[in-house]
Amino acid sequence: MPSMRDDSLRLDDAVAILERTPASLTALLKDLPERWVQATEGAGTWSPYDVIGHLIHGERTDWIPRARHIMAGDSRPFEPFDRMAQFTASQGKSLGELLVTFAELRHQNLATLLEMNVTNEDLNRRGLHPELGGVTLGQLLATWVVHDLDHVSQIARTMAKVYSEATGPWSAYLSILRDRQRY
Amino acid sequence: MPSMRDDSLRLDDAVAILERTPASLTALLKDLPERWVQATEGAGTWSPYDVIGHLIHGERTDWIPRARHIMAGDSRPFEPFDRMAQFTASQGKSLGELLVTFAELRHQNLATLLEMNVTNEDLNRRGLHPELGGVTLGQLLATWVVHDLDHVSQIARTMAKVYSEATGPWSAYLSILRDRQRY
Repeated sequence: MPSMRDDSLRLDDAVAILERTPASLTALLKDLPERWVQATEGAGTWSPYDVIGHLIHGERTDWIPRARHIMAGDSRPFEPFDRMAQFTASQGKSLGELLVTFAELRHQNLATLLEMNVTNEDLNRRGLHPELGGVTLGQLLATWVVHDLDHVSQIARTMAKVYSEATGPWSAYLSILRDRQRY
Repeated sequence: MPSMRDDSLRLDDAVAILERTPASLTALLKDLPERWVQATEGAGTWSPYDVIGHLIHGERTDWIPRARHIMAGDSRPFEPFDRMAQFTASQGKSLGELLVTFAELRHQNLATLLEMNVTNEDLNRRGLHPELGGVTLGQLLATWVVHDLDHVSQIARTMAKVYSEATGPWSAYLSILRDRQRY
């Protein structure tokens, strides 16, 4: 029983965000000092460098494989997604390399998505998530978009917190310094 | 009595973020469908379009004028900053025009900042904020950086919430959909 908003997912709108994320993150992060790129929000949280590795792993193993799985009518659950893969997969790679890899994979994946000729009816096709149960192709594509934006926001928040103390009295006006506060 | 982090503001690090923000936001927002650009988080909240107008107003009236004010040793309080200026100043302008204006003003302002030849000692110079009281030049520059990142995060969060319903069961994994929840 999709809500009005659920109905209104349009493939063009989703692709418009997905195709912009790599360039936006590259413009933000490329050649930035390590102080920003390696910053975290504390133990167990991710740096911008970690996040780019995570986005790459999603391009390789999550979004398009799951879209194919749904379009093929496969009734088995999706392969679980490894949220920690980047901690081994990124080893020895520079952030610049990771940004190029992310942009290439995203470009290929959006080309693949367009080749799948997904119709509005196809957006209601269902697959089985290993934890969440029944989900639709439309929900998968909306999640791909929101997942990008969640990590863009996380990168900005993580870097902002490097200057938590440095802003002095102005910190009262800067809500981002208290978003997802862990202490 | 600056803390360790306060001490560690370096002008190069601040400029590295400030010079990247316009290109990153342009890559994210240019030519995006209106659905994304005009989205808000509800009554009284700002769309990505509104935010770019706000960033422009900061370039015109806030950061560099206040930095000059401090460097000149002016003991009067800063001019208050108008947080609503964009609602009149942006009228009739396309988002594309606003992005170009923001990039040009930021470029000019960073050139001006470099011409000011701010030393590490200068970062401890003080000015008077009309509400917050005594602040330093270093705190002003750190706030400029965090203010950029706060609005990058806000833009990503605002656009993510367009798909709050569309993600279906996956919304449980997408914390951004609940960040700064107002209802």
